[in-house]
Amino acid sequence: MEDSNNHIPREECGIVGLYNIPDAANMAYLGAYALQHRGQESAGIVTSNGSRLTRYAGMGKVTEVFSTDILRELKGSLAIAHNRYSTTGASFLGNAQPLRFESRLGTFALAHNGNLTNAHVLRKQLEREGSIFQTTVDSEVISHLMVKSGESDFTNALIYALRKIKGAFSLVIMNENTLYALRDPNGFRPLVMGKKEDGFAFASESCALDIIDAEFTRDVKPGELIRIKDGVVESMFPFEEVRESLCIFEFIYFARPDSQIFRKSVYEVRLQLGRNLAKEHPADADIVIAVPDSSVAAAIGFAEESGIPYQAGLIRSHYIGRTFIEPDQRIRDFGARIKYNPIPFVVSGKRVVVVDDSIMRGTTQKKIVGMLRRAGAKEIHVRISAAPTRHACYYGIDIPSPTELIASAHSVEQITSFLRVDSMGYLSEEGMISAAGTERVYCTACFNGRYPVPLEELQGVPYSNKKEQDE
Amino acid sequence: MEDSNNHIPREECGIVGLYNIPDAANMAYLGAYALQHRGQESAGIVTSNGSRLTRYAGMGKVTEVFSTDILRELKGSLAIAHNRYSTTGASFLGNAQPLRFESRLGTFALAHNGNLTNAHVLRKQLEREGSIFQTTVDSEVISHLMVKSGESDFTNALIYALRKIKGAFSLVIMNENTLYALRDPNGFRPLVMGKKEDGFAFASESCALDIIDAEFTRDVKPGELIRIKDGVVESMFPFEEVRESLCIFEFIYFARPDSQIFRKSVYEVRLQLGRNLAKEHPADADIVIAVPDSSVAAAIGFAEESGIPYQAGLIRSHYIGRTFIEPDQRIRDFGARIKYNPIPFVVSGKRVVVVDDSIMRGTTQKKIVGMLRRAGAKEIHVRISAAPTRHACYYGIDIPSPTELIASAHSVEQITSFLRVDSMGYLSEEGMISAAGTERVYCTACFNGRYPVPLEELQGVPYSNKKEQDE
Amino acid sequence: MEDSNNHIPREECGIVGLYNIPDAANMAYLGAYALQHRGQESAGIVTSNGSRLTRYAGMGKVTEVFSTDILRELKGSLAIAHNRYSTTGASFLGNAQPLRFESRLGTFALAHNGNLTNAHVLRKQLEREGSIFQTTVDSEVISHLMVKSGESDFTNALIYALRKIKGAFSLVIMNENTLYALRDPNGFRPLVMGKKEDGFAFASESCALDIIDAEFTRDVKPGELIRIKDGVVESMFPFEEVRESLCIFEFIYFARPDSQIFRKSVYEVRLQLGRNLAKEHPADADIVIAVPDSSVAAAIGFAEESGIPYQAGLIRSHYIGRTFIEPDQRIRDFGARIKYNPIPFVVSGKRVVVVDDSIMRGTTQKKIVGMLRRAGAKEIHVRISAAPTRHACYYGIDIPSPTELIASAHSVEQITSFLRVDSMGYLSEEGMISAAGTERVYCTACFNGRYPVPLEELQGVPYSNKKEQDE
Amino acid sequence: MEDSNNHIPREECGIVGLYNIPDAANMAYLGAYALQHRGQESAGIVTSNGSRLTRYAGMGKVTEVFSTDILRELKGSLAIAHNRYSTTGASFLGNAQPLRFESRLGTFALAHNGNLTNAHVLRKQLEREGSIFQTTVDSEVISHLMVKSGESDFTNALIYALRKIKGAFSLVIMNENTLYALRDPNGFRPLVMGKKEDGFAFASESCALDIIDAEFTRDVKPGELIRIKDGVVESMFPFEEVRESLCIFEFIYFARPDSQIFRKSVYEVRLQLGRNLAKEHPADADIVIAVPDSSVAAAIGFAEESGIPYQAGLIRSHYIGRTFIEPDQRIRDFGARIKYNPIPFVVSGKRVVVVDDSIMRGTTQKKIVGMLRRAGAKEIHVRISAAPTRHACYYGIDIPSPTELIASAHSVEQITSFLRVDSMGYLSEEGMISAAGTERVYCTACFNGRYPVPLEELQGVPYSNKKEQDE
Repeated sequence: MEDSNNHIPREECGIVGLYNIPDAANMAYLGAYALQHRGQESAGIVTSNGSRLTRYAGMGKVTEVFSTDILRELKGSLAIAHNRYSTTGASFLGNAQPLRFESRLGTFALAHNGNLTNAHVLRKQLEREGSIFQTTVDSEVISHLMVKSGESDFTNALIYALRKIKGAFSLVIMNENTLYALRDPNGFRPLVMGKKEDGFAFASESCALDIIDAEFTRDVKPGELIRIKDGVVESMFPFEEVRESLCIFEFIYFARPDSQIFRKSVYEVRLQLGRNLAKEHPADADIVIAVPDSSVAAAIGFAEESGIPYQAGLIRSHYIGRTFIEPDQRIRDFGARIKYNPIPFVVSGKRVVVVDDSIMRGTTQKKIVGMLRRAGAKEIHVRISAAPTRHACYYGIDIPSPTELIASAHSVEQITSFLRVDSMGYLSEEGMISAAGTERVYCTACFNGRYPVPLEELQGVPYSNKKEQDE
Repeated sequence: MEDSNNHIPREECGIVGLYNIPDAANMAYLGAYALQHRGQESAGIVTSNGSRLTRYAGMGKVTEVFSTDILRELKGSLAIAHNRYSTTGASFLGNAQPLRFESRLGTFALAHNGNLTNAHVLRKQLEREGSIFQTTVDSEVISHLMVKSGESDFTNALIYALRKIKGAFSLVIMNENTLYALRDPNGFRPLVMGKKEDGFAFASESCALDIIDAEFTRDVKPGELIRIKDGVVESMFPFEEVRESLCIFEFIYFARPDSQIFRKSVYEVRLQLGRNLAKEHPADADIVIAVPDSSVAAAIGFAEESGIPYQAGLIRSHYIGRTFIEPDQRIRDFGARIKYNPIPFVVSGKRVVVVDDSIMRGTTQKKIVGMLRRAGAKEIHVRISAAPTRHACYYGIDIPSPTELIASAHSVEQITSFLRVDSMGYLSEEGMISAAGTERVYCTACFNGRYPVPLEELQGVPYSNKKEQDE
Repeated sequence: MEDSNNHIPREECGIVGLYNIPDAANMAYLGAYALQHRGQESAGIVTSNGSRLTRYAGMGKVTEVFSTDILRELKGSLAIAHNRYSTTGASFLGNAQPLRFESRLGTFALAHNGNLTNAHVLRKQLEREGSIFQTTVDSEVISHLMVKSGESDFTNALIYALRKIKGAFSLVIMNENTLYALRDPNGFRPLVMGKKEDGFAFASESCALDIIDAEFTRDVKPGELIRIKDGVVESMFPFEEVRESLCIFEFIYFARPDSQIFRKSVYEVRLQLGRNLAKEHPADADIVIAVPDSSVAAAIGFAEESGIPYQAGLIRSHYIGRTFIEPDQRIRDFGARIKYNPIPFVVSGKRVVVVDDSIMRGTTQKKIVGMLRRAGAKEIHVRISAAPTRHACYYGIDIPSPTELIASAHSVEQITSFLRVDSMGYLSEEGMISAAGTERVYCTACFNGRYPVPLEELQGVPYSNKKEQDE
Repeated sequence: MEDSNNHIPREECGIVGLYNIPDAANMAYLGAYALQHRGQESAGIVTSNGSRLTRYAGMGKVTEVFSTDILRELKGSLAIAHNRYSTTGASFLGNAQPLRFESRLGTFALAHNGNLTNAHVLRKQLEREGSIFQTTVDSEVISHLMVKSGESDFTNALIYALRKIKGAFSLVIMNENTLYALRDPNGFRPLVMGKKEDGFAFASESCALDIIDAEFTRDVKPGELIRIKDGVVESMFPFEEVRESLCIFEFIYFARPDSQIFRKSVYEVRLQLGRNLAKEHPADADIVIAVPDSSVAAAIGFAEESGIPYQAGLIRSHYIGRTFIEPDQRIRDFGARIKYNPIPFVVSGKRVVVVDDSIMRGTTQKKIVGMLRRAGAKEIHVRISAAPTRHACYYGIDIPSPTELIASAHSVEQITSFLRVDSMGYLSEEGMISAAGTERVYCTACFNGRYPVPLEELQGVPYSNKKEQDE
């Protein structure tokens, strides 16, 4: 029930789809749990027992939303699940996915990872044509496009709708007996496929397959629509072909290091990012430490390449609850302190390379630097395993608005001075791409502003201005 | 009266609408609290601050759903509120009202008391035409009819929709700056209007006006649509005129005795029901007791007319929580015991008249009779301040299906024998109508099966069979 | 974790004791539920499976504190239970009863209704002798007196302790295999005994026996100590004989009307209080109404005696939750409004007798009078079915301090004027006693200040001043 | 290291003491939060405002137990706090510390880390002498010894009690205006001292000083009793001198790596444990991975010494909630899977050294080995940075009973075979001690059964057999 305080609608999410997996609700729960890092604000599951779709969703983490009693009510071997972290501030239960629809095409449900760049335009047009929206979720337009397609066949209606939407969308869609999984033609967001006995599983990342003992099979390809019905898997390519543009930020920060996405190990890419970083920005230092957990692999890569020993010199606390209570009395760097604590033994008297994956506003890094100084670090050399983040993301990653991004208006020298470090260095775009693998094409819009798919706005009105608040 | 759980879709509800009432969310909360007896399963409020609608709804009683923090977020002086008790078993959060819609007609919200008899037919037709439904609430069809009306004016679109729907509906509807309140042309369900300083209030019963210090003005008339916009109150009569058919069961059982509905005091009617009952079915007895709380006024009326003294001989417990834990060890009449306890001093050795408002399955009454016997009652004469309940209600009262209604297949003699009482008597239909006032026309369908508005079914498929379960 | 805001320690409580009752935890739960009106702040149960005592207690009502899972853990056929409403403001979990002790006399537990008048003196002395207290509950002294008695036999130790304590105490005490139930020699607080198959049950009021299908046997007598061990019931009278002084306020207000205590029906006494009130203070009026629920029987008695018809003219709401949210905008008589609503039909244009059981500060009555006036009452005649309440209670009833009691410093004329009523009348002490029955002797200290057992204070220091705050 | 649930009473705990620290409750909350890893079952804080002790405790983690409202009620600049993880299964609220006592010595409170080896004997004797216990916490004997000391001075009484107790005890004790902090003469458990402006802070580990911006000063010494009163710090040594026996397991597993205890950096010791391990048990392998998080430093040390590269090849999930729901359908190694996931890129086709800090039952390690095999590891070489754990701990570490410890009845060969690994090696005792530092003396009883302080049992009855269960 919070107000939106951000102009650009975007959501970070994890999705799961299961077909012919006994006890599908529990398996979807486990899969969503493994994708918890992709969104901790709401969680939901829809199952089908072959004739009826049952939905449950709530605010909070997967383990908070679901109980044994609730999972027991979610019957069937067909399921989709969703985790969401809304970055628009429109944090309300009504927006929790999967969405569920009753229509002339029957009852169906949908879970979406990504952001549609023409959702606002489509929505206004659909409203003019009589559609009623009950959420502010952009993927709600898909259902309306489907029922207005004129198509009586569910698959045809879906294809009709998919051809109208633009932007980033990895989707799992289900009705009583069919599961669809697809990626937009750019393939912005990952989606992998697995097999478990006679069943099939889809998930944003392979770690969600691991937890349910499903075997990773392959990526859903950019532009591919997979339908599983009557046990038969069909692959279609309903979109016009476009150049792929895989989100490189998934590799840099967002995905779990134990996942495989875009046909690569996330850990492997991060290791290479660190190695490239060491090559581009070597440092004369005694130790390399990471800002845990997302930068550990890059730090190890940096250490390998540079020959400077890696140490786990910054400890991260994992006990943080929802509402951490701030004392009245001031504590230096309070917020960062709750999360991080340096190890004086490691850093005291040392020239320290601190590897981090990205810098947004720079405030947390500044606090960490302060802590390291007080713990006795002699020199601090910040190394970022990505290029400077300067632009908004319209495709599903929570990047602050450019006015908040320190790199969008400040030079590396200025940032170095702001952070009060001895040196700092960002990996080059080339360094990132070479680490991710030049055999694929990546979206690097947040670094260079080259958006593969532009945001369509309506008469210059940014999408979110008309947003209504809800529960 | 007992509880029911059956298959004909109907909901008991209370609704509130407020216009130009400062602190409208809190006032709507109080109003909904006063109508808590009309539905305890979910509660919701939508407010408008003039430009934006904010909604909050949850499962449970009003005091459980809302907190100070939540009410504080519900800003504005325009509000609608809703209490619901769903009798269809589709007890899920998604169905909590008020519903809120985003459409070409702008954002609006709606709260409904009653049941539409052609909702299923309309819904299927709307689905065929491309409407998507997100709840199983019958009033969701109204919004789709509105946007498909071709009308660009909100009021015209609403009138268009209202002319399509049939059945029982007292409604409050709002958009950013306008409040609508209306009753179906039969006037099945009550809706009263009040004034508070420069503001206006609508509620299912006048007790909700009392609690917010609003002054009762008048009934919204059957078939009347009231619109308040820019401080101006307009009254319209958009429906074809039909014979009114006020729900007599509101008087008998459902409404609060301190309410005024249908231009009458509920208490007054109940008192007269009791007097008429005493005339029709006198008893040679020592005391009159009520099954509290709904039958107290009728019992006092019976005592007045018969000259037999009234005593509060059956105590009702009001502490019952949500989940009352049943012991493993058997207790006679466990369920009824938790709620009622007789006073041996009052009933022991006495010939007791027990006045109740209605008998559904007869099981609770049978347990009460057993308790009274064990407490020493010498004779028990059950008197019901209504005619035998033999038919389902399609207009918003939770009456079990006819197969469960003891009176639908059993004679008074058989019921007397089943309850093991010395005598029993039901008030005649004439006795009910004379108590309620012959100047008005009542719906007595649950007693005689004469439905003023028939239930429209689709191809013989009862509405509820297609219901989906949800969260 | 609230501060104490009241000088004199007193608690309202309900207690239950069960011996050889299968499923004792569930039965104790039901018994405590039936006594919920005696205290809604905390609830607890201790059971024994013959060798081990298990305890669970929490803040809130019985149905809020206990779940099926918790009751399942409370094994055995021997149990005691306790409800508490602390009037001292020391509302913390640590004080929830029953208390449980591990000592040289083994493990035992205790639940207390009443207040000890020498607890503070004893406690200070026990502390000097090395006792450590973990609660501020006065009955904790009993356990320390027991272990310091020099007695090795549990019963002898208990008797030793009982002879030291003074004041009001109905107690149930248990160890692994024995249940004790007793009343202080004055018999201030009630305690009844019942039988259920081969088991025995004790409770503050007989309504707690009814709910578990136990048969009322008799009162535990003033000064009687009952022990049940190995299935054998023994009755002892360990105290010096004193004149009994039964709390007449149990009859007037506190006990449930369907209970039998002090060998009388509470309802019967209230009816007679009303009749006596009508004789002492007749009124020339049209109707008699009660302030529900506790005054209903007295109002009916008043109506019977006076011939003025009784009507249920004031409705009481029973949905009030824990935290009722007050609106920012003023509502006249907000607090009273949430609880009561008058029926205009009943009171409009009428001369109304309002029967209430007692007046403490007078503020609620004043609000009710205002509501009745606005509902159209022509004349209002308040009649109180008790004498003016002018003095504190040291024996377990929550009566405000004398400085807050309107009758302690104001004449009937002044109160009449304060309440803005046409007349008012209090029942005389003789009228109360005659209604309760002259065959017994009652404590009427709150009316006349004649305390049967004086409060022992330590060096003029009131007991509560040394109170510590806790959770 | 795995979890345990067995019958020898011992508790893992964290303690905090603050003197003259403004906003002490919030600071104690932060300190307890930093020590969350030492116990997550209950948390409590007692504060003093100079004249009154206020206590709050509850079940769960610090952030779950305390709210802003509760902390606001805990006034004063003097506080103690406690985290507890009970290994006895006596998981009940009554046992939550700090304990609070009212006695002839005034009101005081106590928080304890460790286990008393003669608690049972003392307790039985104290019970014989009339003491009553309300918890099963062993440190409750301290309060009774104090009041029975004959001493009227609080400090003298405390010293009297301290001289009677045996075993492991780091304690913080407070009354209205004085804070005491002390360690048993063996110094089993850590306790450090810090300074924050004009105030003083004590904590089990230095990480709790860091989070409140207090400066680490020194260790409380084994056998040292520090009293702070009227702003004056006094150090006393009330115990007979004994050889110190610092718990080496704090270094190996229990303490946080960013803490300093026993005058050493925990991280430093672990690094050295890993180096020594590599020397004692080299492996011909491609990579070194840790079982995170406690083994990371040892794995890095192993990598440094061996020259085999360290990789973060096993990912640990930190989202686990209280009640993780297990699916009906089988998942291999379910429990371990929820917590750990290997990275195939890292381990596939590799000869992997897995460094772990200890093996209790061996079941978790076996599951991890299975996961690594399925992820493609060619060879697996388990290296344990401690000696085989073969004996129970009586001093406050949760080690399963010897019958459950795989190393107590199995040779390294047998364990190698059980785990299905290619090789395994435990660090020698000498290797552990050399890493921890030979300038100090350590308790290594869990490895070799040489208990510095024997467990005193009463007539051969193990302490826990008489334990009562509670809430």
